[in-house]
Parts: sequence; C-alpha cells; structure tokens
Amino acid sequence: MEKIPDINVYVRFCETDAGGHVSNTSYFIYMEEARSKFFTAIGFTGKEKRGNIDFIVASTTCDFLVQAYAGQTLAIATKVERIGSKSFELAHEITNNETGGLIASGRATIVCFDYQKQQTEKVPPVLREMLEGFLMEA
Amino acid sequence: MEKIPDINVYVRFCETDAGGHVSNTSYFIYMEEARSKFFTAIGFTGKEKRGNIDFIVASTTCDFLVQAYAGQTLAIATKVERIGSKSFELAHEITNNETGGLIASGRATIVCFDYQKQQTEKVPPVLREMLEGFLMEA
Amino acid sequence: MEKIPDINVYVRFCETDAGGHVSNTSYFIYMEEARSKFFTAIGFTGKEKRGNIDFIVASTTCDFLVQAYAGQTLAIATKVERIGSKSFELAHEITNNETGGLIASGRATIVCFDYQKQQTEKVPPVLREMLEGFLMEA
Amino acid sequence: MEKIPDINVYVRFCETDAGGHVSNTSYFIYMEEARSKFFTAIGFTGKEKRGNIDFIVASTTCDFLVQAYAGQTLAIATKVERIGSKSFELAHEITNNETGGLIASGRATIVCFDYQKQQTEKVPPVLREMLEGFLMEA
Repeated sequence: MEKIPDINVYVRFCETDAGGHVSNTSYFIYMEEARSKFFTAIGFTGKEKRGNIDFIVASTTCDFLVQAYAGQTLAIATKVERIGSKSFELAHEITNNETGGLIASGRATIVCFDYQKQQTEKVPPVLREMLEGFLMEA
Repeated sequence: MEKIPDINVYVRFCETDAGGHVSNTSYFIYMEEARSKFFTAIGFTGKEKRGNIDFIVASTTCDFLVQAYAGQTLAIATKVERIGSKSFELAHEITNNETGGLIASGRATIVCFDYQKQQTEKVPPVLREMLEGFLMEA
Repeated sequence: MEKIPDINVYVRFCETDAGGHVSNTSYFIYMEEARSKFFTAIGFTGKEKRGNIDFIVASTTCDFLVQAYAGQTLAIATKVERIGSKSFELAHEITNNETGGLIASGRATIVCFDYQKQQTEKVPPVLREMLEGFLMEA
Repeated sequence: MEKIPDINVYVRFCETDAGGHVSNTSYFIYMEEARSKFFTAIGFTGKEKRGNIDFIVASTTCDFLVQAYAGQTLAIATKVERIGSKSFELAHEITNNETGGLIASGRATIVCFDYQKQQTEKVPPVLREMLEGFLMEA
C-alpha cells in the first residue's frame, strides 16, 4: 500500500470551546482539509482528470478519544478504506504530532456526483486506479 | 414516548461552501445546538441536577441526504436512541422546515464525565429517568 | 426612521472558545446573519428586485465590550449608517436579550457588485430608496 | 524593526461560502491564528512570562480587497501598530502566497486583562519591550 504523508493541522483558539478543548465540530473541519489534500496528493485534480465528476460527502463520522488543545499541532493520516461502485470511503487517524498519541479517528463516505446532471456517477476508472494504491490492507 | 419540540435553525451564508450548499461540517454545529437545547428542554441543567457530571461527546456521525441552502430554515428533531451504563445516544433528524423533506440524519454518543476526577461516570439516576421518557420505541 | 425588528441569535457552545466566552470570530457570523435578515426584512430579494446586483462585503469591524456565553440569546439591531454612490454601511448593536446590556457593536461596508461583469456598480435606485428608510439620524 | 516570518494558512473548503470565495468571517479566523503565532514567535508564553496577564480582543477589523479561494495558501504578516498603556494594536496583511498580491488587511486591538481580578491591566514591561521590537515605523 502506498501512503501519502500525514498532514499537519495547527489548532486555532477559535476551534476550541468553553470546555477548554477542541470542539467536536472542529474535527470535521480538520478531516475535510485532509480529504482535500488527499485528492491533491494522489493527483486527482484538474478538468482533464475529473471531467464533470465532483465529490459529495454522503456520510461522516468521528470518534473522539483524547482531548486536544489550542496551539497543538495534529497530524492526520488518510487511507482508502473501501472502494464501491459509485462511492468510496476514506479513513482518517488524527494524532498528537508531538507524542504520536491517537486523539480521534474518523471516516467519510464520498459519492461521485455530476452536478450538471444532478445525479450520482460510477467511480471513474482513472480515479479507481488511483484510490486502489492507497487501499488499506484487510 | 415524550417528545421535545423540534428546534429551528436558520442557515447562515457562512455555513455554506463554494459547492453552493450547506457545508457538511455545519450539520455538526446544528446538531450540537439541538443537543444543548435538548438538555435544557428535559430540564437537566444547573448544579443541583448535574452535580459534577458533565458530558463529553464520544462519537458523532451524520448522513447527508439532500442539499440545503443559505436562508433556509431547518427543523431538528432529537430523540434518545439508547441508554447505556455510562453513556447514551441521541438521534437527530434534520428536515426542511417548509417542505418537511428529510435533509440529514445524525447521532451522537455522549459519555458522562467528571472533569474534576477526569474520569467517566455512570449515568446518574435522575438523568436516566429523564432520558427514558424520550427513548425511541424499538 | 423605520426600524426592522431585532433578530435573536442563540449562542452555540462551539461558538465559544477556551477563554470560556464567545469567540471574537463568532460575532462576525452573527452580524452576517443580521445582514442577510436585514435584506429579507426590507424586501430586497429575488431576481426582479436585484437584477445582476449582488453584495460584496468590503470591510467589517467589531468592538467587543462585554463577554457573552454559551446558551445566551443575543439580540441584534441593524441600521443603515451611510449610503454612498456604490456602497453603503450597516451598523449592528448586539445586546444581551435578557438584560438589554450592550455586548458588542459592529459595522459592515457593503459594495454593490456585478459578478458577471466582475465590477462594482452604483447602488440601484430601488435599493437606495429602501435603505433610506432605515438610515440612522445624524 | 524586527519581523517575524509570515505564517501560511491553507484555505479550507468549509471556509468558503456559496459566493464561491472565502467567507468574510474566515479572515478573522486566519488573523486569530496569526496573533497566536505572533505571541509564540516573540516568546511571550508560559506562566513565568505572562503571570496573570491574559489578552482580550477589544476590537477587530478587516478590509477585503481581492477574493480568495479554496485550496489557496495565504501568507499573513503581523506587525505592531501601536502600544498604549493597557492595550496595543496588531496589524495583519494577508497576501496570496503564490502571487504576493494583497488580499485583505486587518487590525486587532488587544487589551491586557487579569481574569482573576476581572479587570484590565497595564501592558507589563517585559511585554512592552518585546512588542517595541516589532513596532511599525511611522
């Protein structure tokens, strides 16, 4: 399995809440950044690659294990968990960049979508091939 | 089963993204508001009720079914899906307030937590009783 | 001077920060909601009114006077402070809905913009007339 | 005048809005990150330095000059604009990291505050000295 480098995310003060730690809502923002950078890293960008295919997030989930705090740097690892007919799943592990300790883990199910036709589409072969290189071993 | 009134949420322009619709990250913000108001609605507030018990969100998930847009009003219904020993689950249905159409549905697993001791705690009997009134029928 | 009703905003937990109070960044979100609802309230909506004219925020500012907290309801009053050739200014007063105490005050300079032509435009007469009704007395 | 290195900020998709560009509300988030990193860069951190002094943002403002987009990297330069008795002002210039073009510029007035006493405090000498090194020439 190939692996893209972890991305680093700096925890902003406004991404914490009055509980003193990172808001549960902020982790979804971090995972969205990880997804964007994942697609850039694997090279699935630009009109010639993507055609009319865009992505819609059909579902996201996150398990919160350890509290994180403002000023920390988090590392996010992203892998492909499953590739289906019209959708695929990315899995994220969010760790404390300094200690390596696991802070949260999440997943997103992404559906290929043609905004012009407003309908779901099959995962294009070029994308499938790219994703397969990053597929987690069972 | 008792039912608290749905809450209404106005979709702010900054809660949409360049996809033209509500960002997937915004739904978690809406569900957090629904949770806060749920606890207010069932009366679990104030030191005399809560003692040292606070809530930590252990996991959240959301399925996105239909796009929503800036300026719309969404209605969020909240029910109790499960009550465990130290945790419980709330389920949310987010609908278009005008048409009634389902837009997204989500869940949160909430753990009772004593911040002073920094440890999980059993669901206190007074809270359990309150939650049971709003428990979804199987 | 006419006056639109104040809008009410519920302070979400995720809109606070680890300082224990509402994040300075959240007030700009509240003021954006106030602006959107101001335009709805004065009736400047829909293609027949707006033509190709859209609004771009050229500048915003906020003075933070008193801390606000999660679960509070804030009231936001919006008035027109100035109408220029191609732009106008809205002023917002954010108060504690329960006590009436002033929490923050802000302003936004809004420029009329034609996205198709990607250029600024004069404030259309129909909008100017609407805004004049809500212009603050000097 | 000393100068801290510009910070780089990646524009997340959720930080844009349905206008297709970065939301005006997001710039305040970026400037908050710049402020946090400014205090780290000049070394004003930790209990021994800060004592009971904390910062409260009394006012922020931002002028939006050019639209920015998801996936871009912005560079933020931060300087000290003014040092008063109990407060000081930071000025930020936000540029496109690739082209160097100015996108937005903003300011924040920050007040020294003792949360225990809940009152404003004089800028401590150690901080004043640090800030003076980064004071903009008139």
